Amino acid sequence: MRATLMYQAGDVRIEDVPDSVIRNPTDALVRVTASCICGSDLHPYHQMTAEDGPARMGHELIGVIEEVGADVTTLKKGDLVVSPFAISDNVCEFCRENLQTSCTHHEATFLDGIADEGGQAEAIRVPLADGTLVKLPVAPDSALIPSLLTLADVFGTGYHAAKMAGIKPGQRVTVIGDGAVGLMAVLSAKRLGAEQIVLMGRHEVRTYLGREFGATDVVAERGKEGIAKVRDLTGGHGSHAVLEAVGHMPAYEQALGVVRPGGVISRVGVPQYDDAPVGFTSLFGGNIRLAGGPAPVRAYIEELMPDILDGTIEPGKVFDTMTDLAGVPAGYRDMDERKSLKVLVRP
Amino acid sequence: MRATLMYQAGDVRIEDVPDSVIRNPTDALVRVTASCICGSDLHPYHQMTAEDGPARMGHELIGVIEEVGADVTTLKKGDLVVSPFAISDNVCEFCRENLQTSCTHHEATFLDGIADEGGQAEAIRVPLADGTLVKLPVAPDSALIPSLLTLADVFGTGYHAAKMAGIKPGQRVTVIGDGAVGLMAVLSAKRLGAEQIVLMGRHEVRTYLGREFGATDVVAERGKEGIAKVRDLTGGHGSHAVLEAVGHMPAYEQALGVVRPGGVISRVGVPQYDDAPVGFTSLFGGNIRLAGGPAPVRAYIEELMPDILDGTIEPGKVFDTMTDLAGVPAGYRDMDERKSLKVLVRP
Repeated sequence: MRATLMYQAGDVRIEDVPDSVIRNPTDALVRVTASCICGSDLHPYHQMTAEDGPARMGHELIGVIEEVGADVTTLKKGDLVVSPFAISDNVCEFCRENLQTSCTHHEATFLDGIADEGGQAEAIRVPLADGTLVKLPVAPDSALIPSLLTLADVFGTGYHAAKMAGIKPGQRVTVIGDGAVGLMAVLSAKRLGAEQIVLMGRHEVRTYLGREFGATDVVAERGKEGIAKVRDLTGGHGSHAVLEAVGHMPAYEQALGVVRPGGVISRVGVPQYDDAPVGFTSLFGGNIRLAGGPAPVRAYIEELMPDILDGTIEPGKVFDTMTDLAGVPAGYRDMDERKSLKVLVRP
Repeated sequence: MRATLMYQAGDVRIEDVPDSVIRNPTDALVRVTASCICGSDLHPYHQMTAEDGPARMGHELIGVIEEVGADVTTLKKGDLVVSPFAISDNVCEFCRENLQTSCTHHEATFLDGIADEGGQAEAIRVPLADGTLVKLPVAPDSALIPSLLTLADVFGTGYHAAKMAGIKPGQRVTVIGDGAVGLMAVLSAKRLGAEQIVLMGRHEVRTYLGREFGATDVVAERGKEGIAKVRDLTGGHGSHAVLEAVGHMPAYEQALGVVRPGGVISRVGVPQYDDAPVGFTSLFGGNIRLAGGPAPVRAYIEELMPDILDGTIEPGKVFDTMTDLAGVPAGYRDMDERKSLKVLVRP
């Protein structure tokens, strides 16, 4: 079968790999009908060394069950399913608390962490299928597929940022980053009742979509100028919640600049740093909280799906480019160059 | 009048200073009847340079109103009051949200931040008296004074740690630090219903008092050994909440080691560092939250006082040494050498 491999930074190839097969009785073999490239895939695209490659890529997918292991009880051949980016048994102590990204099962990992598997491929073996996969009540060619595919990662991740920030109706929120997760954070903040949603981003096509999703203000400036503008928009004191959807240090510093005393910085951009300011003059003095982490998107799928099915929201608009597997290397390049917002892959 | 001045690290003196007087119509002049030395006073006691001294000291006090400014409406001469360590107008946007430590009034500061004033003195001018001071329904020589004095800082600070951690009944909590604030954090965690309270500390007199306040386990070990022991006590996954009442980097690292995925590190020890680990392997990967800051103790006084008045709790047990003003320099030394837990000063 064909699959995506990253050899090192900037070097993505589509190659023939051994067919995925069932290995454990709790596995499902899924024929991928829709996958995509994630903003977080760009981190290795910038940084991966040749020693760490080649790596199978992709952790978001919708597909048709082709075969299930003997112990799988809730899924059968022919079911259309969405897979969260994190595998979980959904019954352990942490899964029961809706923190599936901390599932204690020894097979729990991110989808692109399974040996010799990845979502940007024709098929994938998904471990712990009963716990991980969620059935979709549509056909594989439904027009809702792009929106439903966002449940695999970006929508759930943006929603996690908003939930961990504890956004309450009437609050002021700033979203840092106009990538797909940032835009989903805007949609999520609106869903939770934020009164003001300031989107910090300067790619106009994206911030336009951000306004459609609920942003009330857009600030294109960065650094001190951007901070001053947001503080101005928020009555001088900053935002109750800052949703940080980038992961680089300047975004963290931006968040510190625009958060209100007593407020919260909720991070879902995977941090590309280890240490950061947390002392008296940054977090402590103003009782500012730091929250967030890898989103347990499994926990949010049932909650978010109905609004997609009935057309209330259309998060799938973040996909502005469609391609087949052969187009994946170009897709990485286009996302890196910000020509594409998010690339949907139909293998 | 006599007051405490710190000239530099290790150099505390009692000297004659100009009498405190009313300066603004919202001031109250308070004759101090009980004050104390705070663990946070030991930070300048270790670090202050001669250029930063001499500084007036003390931010916790009970006293009798001697005079009030023309605009003070809720207090009168003769009232016994407790003063939180932070001055606040109690009506601004942040005060109304119970974040009095972020009061926007231009006179809002910590009590030892008022020019030429301090709590370890015979008297003090307290700005914004209506907003800051709280009347006490006892006499200045009441046996309850030590416990009521803890409402000025340490009890409210320990309670803030527990509140910001969002402790729920049945949870596992670890408290780092066996100083007065750490012990108050134990009492507060118990008040909020924690099922297990592990106190990390190795001063036996203090940890004994910690057990009396509600600690279910005491871990004397530090570093990796201490972390391993707490993880063992908490079923391998760590504590839902870690209350960090020290402020030094090893305490932060200890907190990272014993917090459970999805849990929270709530800091009330004033951080003696700027940057700290917050990346994927420390906070982010496990969705661990960071909370806390200077405690808005004003917000907690009415809530905590009844249990002191009716004898349900006796937080004043943290005072193991009593002295007059002349004994304050020795009090600093004894607290620094851990011979005294907390020194009560009767000027």
